[in-house]
Amino acid sequence: MAKDKKVEQITDMDVDFAQWFTDVCTKAELIDYSSIKGMYIMRPYGYAIWENIQHILDAEFKALGHENVYLPMLIPESLLQKEKDHVEGFAPECAWVTYGGSDKLEERYCIRPTSETLFCEHYKNVIHSWRDLPKLYNQWCSVLRWEKTSRPFLRHREFLWQEGHTMHESEEEARAETQRMLNVYADFMENTLAMPVIRGRKTDKEKFNGAEETYTVECMMHDHKALQGGTSHYFGDGFAKAFDITYTGKDNQLHHPYQTSWGVSVRMIGGIIMTHGDNSGLVLPPKIAPTQVIVVPVAMHKEGVREAAEKLLETLKNAGIRAGIDLSDQSMGWKAAQKLTLPLENIADSVKALLDEVQKELYAKALKNLQDNTFDAHSVEEVRDGCANGGFARMMWCGDEACEVKMKEQAGVTSRCIPFEQQHIGDVCPVCGKPAKHMVIWGIAY
Amino acid sequence: MAKDKKVEQITDMDVDFAQWFTDVCTKAELIDYSSIKGMYIMRPYGYAIWENIQHILDAEFKALGHENVYLPMLIPESLLQKEKDHVEGFAPECAWVTYGGSDKLEERYCIRPTSETLFCEHYKNVIHSWRDLPKLYNQWCSVLRWEKTSRPFLRHREFLWQEGHTMHESEEEARAETQRMLNVYADFMENTLAMPVIRGRKTDKEKFNGAEETYTVECMMHDHKALQGGTSHYFGDGFAKAFDITYTGKDNQLHHPYQTSWGVSVRMIGGIIMTHGDNSGLVLPPKIAPTQVIVVPVAMHKEGVREAAEKLLETLKNAGIRAGIDLSDQSMGWKAAQKLTLPLENIADSVKALLDEVQKELYAKALKNLQDNTFDAHSVEEVRDGCANGGFARMMWCGDEACEVKMKEQAGVTSRCIPFEQQHIGDVCPVCGKPAKHMVIWGIAY
Repeated sequence: MAKDKKVEQITDMDVDFAQWFTDVCTKAELIDYSSIKGMYIMRPYGYAIWENIQHILDAEFKALGHENVYLPMLIPESLLQKEKDHVEGFAPECAWVTYGGSDKLEERYCIRPTSETLFCEHYKNVIHSWRDLPKLYNQWCSVLRWEKTSRPFLRHREFLWQEGHTMHESEEEARAETQRMLNVYADFMENTLAMPVIRGRKTDKEKFNGAEETYTVECMMHDHKALQGGTSHYFGDGFAKAFDITYTGKDNQLHHPYQTSWGVSVRMIGGIIMTHGDNSGLVLPPKIAPTQVIVVPVAMHKEGVREAAEKLLETLKNAGIRAGIDLSDQSMGWKAAQKLTLPLENIADSVKALLDEVQKELYAKALKNLQDNTFDAHSVEEVRDGCANGGFARMMWCGDEACEVKMKEQAGVTSRCIPFEQQHIGDVCPVCGKPAKHMVIWGIAY
Repeated sequence: MAKDKKVEQITDMDVDFAQWFTDVCTKAELIDYSSIKGMYIMRPYGYAIWENIQHILDAEFKALGHENVYLPMLIPESLLQKEKDHVEGFAPECAWVTYGGSDKLEERYCIRPTSETLFCEHYKNVIHSWRDLPKLYNQWCSVLRWEKTSRPFLRHREFLWQEGHTMHESEEEARAETQRMLNVYADFMENTLAMPVIRGRKTDKEKFNGAEETYTVECMMHDHKALQGGTSHYFGDGFAKAFDITYTGKDNQLHHPYQTSWGVSVRMIGGIIMTHGDNSGLVLPPKIAPTQVIVVPVAMHKEGVREAAEKLLETLKNAGIRAGIDLSDQSMGWKAAQKLTLPLENIADSVKALLDEVQKELYAKALKNLQDNTFDAHSVEEVRDGCANGGFARMMWCGDEACEVKMKEQAGVTSRCIPFEQQHIGDVCPVCGKPAKHMVIWGIAY
């Protein structure tokens, strides 16, 4: 009965998916609210998931030669304005600092919404010769975007993320870095978070402010809506020119370097919840779960039971399994829903095999969800009807932004990406009838 | 000659210690300036030192039962004002956010200078019963204090730190936590940073805004000035009352919990530099150095030299030594000042023994500096003369703030701490002649 009561506290996901999501975030004690709208508290279990994500990605970034740095959290307004497209995109959602103590500042500073401008200011100081390239920097920090609406993990005014910023001698090398880091994200999401992804390129309309190209990994949530899991941007030498960053090349001439940036955030935790969670609450892939196994001793009043349980805990921990123990006096009803019997001999190996199995099953289930709810479409109406309750539509596109806008107006969807893996499902753009250039994935996005 | 030139770039520490320090921070590429005064860029090598500090301390905090969380970076003005002493101390150096996008905010928000008020707001939500205690939380983040003057590592307007915030059932338990965490800092500084410390209590005048007691670890720099390495605060139930945080005790009555906070920051890196650095630049204790050993192949044009060097690098890395290799074509003049010969057999063990020896020597040298420049004083004049160029004076004190103020005016020193290890060096306070209560360490502080 106690268990039933616990489950009752969570809204059924089929009744109200948004409320189910919020319930999981708060009841699983991942998130708490603060007194400022959209600024959330990451509680210990939520933060521990982020630490696991950081730990794995940070090691991968470093193995590929990236170095961590820390730049200021404030950007002078004049610095933000140096790249026109960039400031147009971000200025409307900047939080502005106007006073330091009791003194009004001569120039106002925004709290970083992203740090391209700060990195460029620094790169101008430290890049002089081709010997200084590539610069492969990454920063773990929080950023702030003054959004009108907010939801735990998915849209915070302040959110934790990492932002990689790199500079290269050639366009070719910078484009390869953009692609390489997208693949790091995609592989991490598939292998560690058990989330199948679609790798592709954003249309010009959807790309990052100031970028020449934006690559993306797109995932399908349990409700068939899309979540952008991570992005990687190629900037060409646009920022370098705006910030007057030059280096002396091997040819002894001055050149502008080519730039990339790439980032993922705590939004991925929202993605994990909406991919794997169920009506009992949070479900985490074992590879990212802060606690993988809980030892629950039964009949603890009997002699030797507690000692045996603690010995088992040690065995599991020593084998590198993130194990805990539940010595509380709450009834078993809370603690266990189902059981299977394993011999104590080689218990750590059996548990590891079981965790691998769970990881694989979660991926397979998510992949089936993606495949079952992705369809080919040959008209705007097909997309509108097929995506009304989520789902991904594959449809050909001429490449004109006008047709993309019409898709939003008439089918209620946005372009998620132009997948790298293209399929030919028609010759013309169903919106305008002109020759098609690409196959695009359309959907409703978080 | 190349080497001489490199050394020449650094100001001699005996000529101008402050300029020497700045030179080390910039020439060793630890720090770069940004366009906002007092907001520094932590470059890869500087940040890597901080990562090593984080890595070691974080593991110690967790081993003692602390959990990491992340709270918002903004504090509404009304929240900051809830504890009177606290706001009086911090309001003058808050940076204030007044606009979100183009909208003027109804209430202004300050960027956190420290997070007691935010933790209290959260604790009110999550502490209900004695079963919820203790709460042992820690946060790694940056904080902002709008200081008038600034110096790399020692006084940033924005600086990286960790802040622990804990809540306890009893005064006794909270006091023990305050003391325990001070000892974690002291042991870390002595054993890992090779910095001898004096453990003690701050006078009321010098304690943290809103705290009942502040404990501190004080270190002596190479120029005999004092650096406060870390602090740990006991708050009693003052904040808990101001924020109306209560829990139901085992006695079924409502109580206020007892609170602590404790923190160290990148300031410790400034301390490492000013303790161990010399006229050739940066000297890092091996336990904290991002790179412990560099393999420098000589006569790389000869067959097999490069391969042997790379094999040696692998051997060292596999033994857990943070090793790098210098394959650049710069002359040996830059690369090596002195040498010793070691057999390749068991090279990793020999190198580890050598690193241990370097670590011990650095500690011994710093300890000698502390001991040689600490003296007993029995008058204000003795302190004034003895501390004129740095140095720590031990002197008895009656406990009155008036005498402490006079010491500042007449001897130019502040009280660093009331050491836990007290010595009886007189019966009266030399300032007023009244009976002495404590022996105090006086000095000039960074």
